Amino acid sequence: MTVDVDLLLHSARQLCIVPAQDGGPQRGRALGTLGLIEDGALAVHEGRILEVGVSATLRAKYRARQAIDAAGCAVLPGFVDPHTHLVWAGDRAAEFEMRIAGATYMDIMRAGGGINSTVRAVRAASVDQLVAETLPRLQRMLRAGTTTVEIKTGYGLDSASELKSLDAIFRLQALQPVGIAATFLGAHAVPPEFAGRTDAFVEMLVDTMIPAAAAYAREKGQPLFNDVFCEAGVFDVPQSRRILEAGRAHGLTPKIHADEFAGLGGTRLAVELGAVSADHLVKTLPDDIAALGQGQTVAVALPATPFGLGHHEFTPARAIIAAGGALALATDCNPGTAWCESMQFVLALACRYLRLTPAEALAAATLNAAFAIGRGAYIGSLEAGKQADLLVLDAPDYRHLAYRFGGNLVKHVVKNGQQIV
Amino acid sequence: MTVDVDLLLHSARQLCIVPAQDGGPQRGRALGTLGLIEDGALAVHEGRILEVGVSATLRAKYRARQAIDAAGCAVLPGFVDPHTHLVWAGDRAAEFEMRIAGATYMDIMRAGGGINSTVRAVRAASVDQLVAETLPRLQRMLRAGTTTVEIKTGYGLDSASELKSLDAIFRLQALQPVGIAATFLGAHAVPPEFAGRTDAFVEMLVDTMIPAAAAYAREKGQPLFNDVFCEAGVFDVPQSRRILEAGRAHGLTPKIHADEFAGLGGTRLAVELGAVSADHLVKTLPDDIAALGQGQTVAVALPATPFGLGHHEFTPARAIIAAGGALALATDCNPGTAWCESMQFVLALACRYLRLTPAEALAAATLNAAFAIGRGAYIGSLEAGKQADLLVLDAPDYRHLAYRFGGNLVKHVVKNGQQIV
Repeated sequence: MTVDVDLLLHSARQLCIVPAQDGGPQRGRALGTLGLIEDGALAVHEGRILEVGVSATLRAKYRARQAIDAAGCAVLPGFVDPHTHLVWAGDRAAEFEMRIAGATYMDIMRAGGGINSTVRAVRAASVDQLVAETLPRLQRMLRAGTTTVEIKTGYGLDSASELKSLDAIFRLQALQPVGIAATFLGAHAVPPEFAGRTDAFVEMLVDTMIPAAAAYAREKGQPLFNDVFCEAGVFDVPQSRRILEAGRAHGLTPKIHADEFAGLGGTRLAVELGAVSADHLVKTLPDDIAALGQGQTVAVALPATPFGLGHHEFTPARAIIAAGGALALATDCNPGTAWCESMQFVLALACRYLRLTPAEALAAATLNAAFAIGRGAYIGSLEAGKQADLLVLDAPDYRHLAYRFGGNLVKHVVKNGQQIV
Repeated sequence: MTVDVDLLLHSARQLCIVPAQDGGPQRGRALGTLGLIEDGALAVHEGRILEVGVSATLRAKYRARQAIDAAGCAVLPGFVDPHTHLVWAGDRAAEFEMRIAGATYMDIMRAGGGINSTVRAVRAASVDQLVAETLPRLQRMLRAGTTTVEIKTGYGLDSASELKSLDAIFRLQALQPVGIAATFLGAHAVPPEFAGRTDAFVEMLVDTMIPAAAAYAREKGQPLFNDVFCEAGVFDVPQSRRILEAGRAHGLTPKIHADEFAGLGGTRLAVELGAVSADHLVKTLPDDIAALGQGQTVAVALPATPFGLGHHEFTPARAIIAAGGALALATDCNPGTAWCESMQFVLALACRYLRLTPAEALAAATLNAAFAIGRGAYIGSLEAGKQADLLVLDAPDYRHLAYRFGGNLVKHVVKNGQQIV
């Protein structure tokens, strides 16, 4: 007896399941478990994966309205990009040029550059302009294989501009198919009008901005994370704790930017507070690495950022894995340090400079990235019951994603069971 | 009076001419001279650039059969990629994975990997297979903006297999629009059957293989360069001299691979012999850098190769520029260390790790790259009289090529006056 289904993908030279580990992310030495199937097939109905197996079995069992012949191709879960700052206005190409030519941070600030230039542009922009500038970025990400993306606010830095950015994020979800997880990052920097008065800005965040963002998200029926840039000269650990605890009191799950330029203990704080992820982690101290091995917080490496800055130091990924941590990858796409829309490039970079194997990098960019935005039960792997978000590569082996670089190997993208690329 | 022309491109937000310097490449501090025109236009007739100027002037003067409106876009010369090993069979993804996991060069050789695995695959392949495997690589390069590419033989390493590779290169020119410059690289490695007998292989190169390649190219009416991998443990400087002098005696202009892993003096040799380029140049010694400032040989940096290997040391580009050298960029696209088809990525990498400004990188990837394959008089810049090979970017400023990374900003490609992308 044959079963009618919406879609049958078959004949994949190599199908990568990337299975969850005990219902969670792949941790420690389990990272890189792909569950490869040769001559693989996948049945999809009503947007979900019904069954995964070998082509002969599934072709005998299912009759599909649409078929995808993936002969000669590797098939894998859609990429999940769990850390981006995608909603911004303008660009900072001139600042990039100054930095390359040797300008210091202070030179750039004096020339009107740095994050404050993006804050000025976002404050001046309408929500329609923010949506119009961000939409092509999302479309390019989709063509490069990203089926779900996290997007942070954080270039508004006042209540109205942060809510405008949040509004743009929610509107973008309705305009295009890439799934979006929203994060409030009012604590991205201390805005110029609060210069030298960080504690006063933290008060405003805790008393006004975070409650307003949480209320707005509730009104729109959207989940929301709360994030903070815990860094020397920005928000210290006690300030970060206040900000994240205030968000949690309003129902917002914590995330954190930690250890990008200095190891302050932000990663330990994240684990203690049950943050869904701790991100950047370049200067992470041994105690913080150990904490990642014990807690539920996913470590998100953002190698495109040191690359974007021309640096040579990256996340100590092998130490995090050795400690039993759950490692994920993200682009950190932003207009200052890393305008990179491609998870494929992040994967290629991570294999070379974080010394991940191609299989580890693939699991970090799919399953573990899904857990870094709290969606590991729904996306990130090709397991029955999950959303049918998958990629067909114009390559015979998933390892080509790491081995080759600078291009785009994605041939087809299926999102929620619909072939959209 | 209006003049009828084939094509008028107009309204470019920014048109980059990248003019030749005294009819030669841009050397020393002149590197990065772009000759920017705002609201730029360009008239093309019979495949050549007739005139470059501002839109109002050219639109009044010319009546075109076809128009390209480049409003909001940067327009620049097509990329010239002056160093690739594009004709190969098979892939080495498994070897990449071994290397990431810590395998040594000898581990890889014992497992049947390394260059010898590609030599086996190329020797076993038909010319049709070589053409079929290479063609999609050329097509992807074109979509990423490369309008002219150099391609080397060097995975055959016997007379018949090297001529087969040369045949594939010549056939590829007839099958697709990217311009191809061919290079004989019989001296890419010492083949397994000559292991321990490098001098005997050099004899065979000089007596048999080089004359045969030169005769074959003459028969086909095609120009040909002659290249050697001058490196510790491969061909030393005296052997490299013999190989390049033998080629020159048969009319083949020298090129050289030098200083990739050890500084042997190969760059000085190249300058002395009047080589058109010296390529790699990572471990280049001060005397060799000084020689580049005095001679006509173009220095070709291949930063995708150290990147591909996960290394941290790159070409000392600033020293070469300071010495008055002419610097170019190339992908080195090859199946072992750098399967990278994108000059855009090389540009982004060079700005960060060779500390080139975006303008320097652009001139290095266009005009100077054209001089590195002896075609500087015909391509590489948007000057009247040259072939109309140009790119329209989906970006308002050429600096986005360096500032952003991991994607493809090319919107349109014009080759020989024909819009082909």
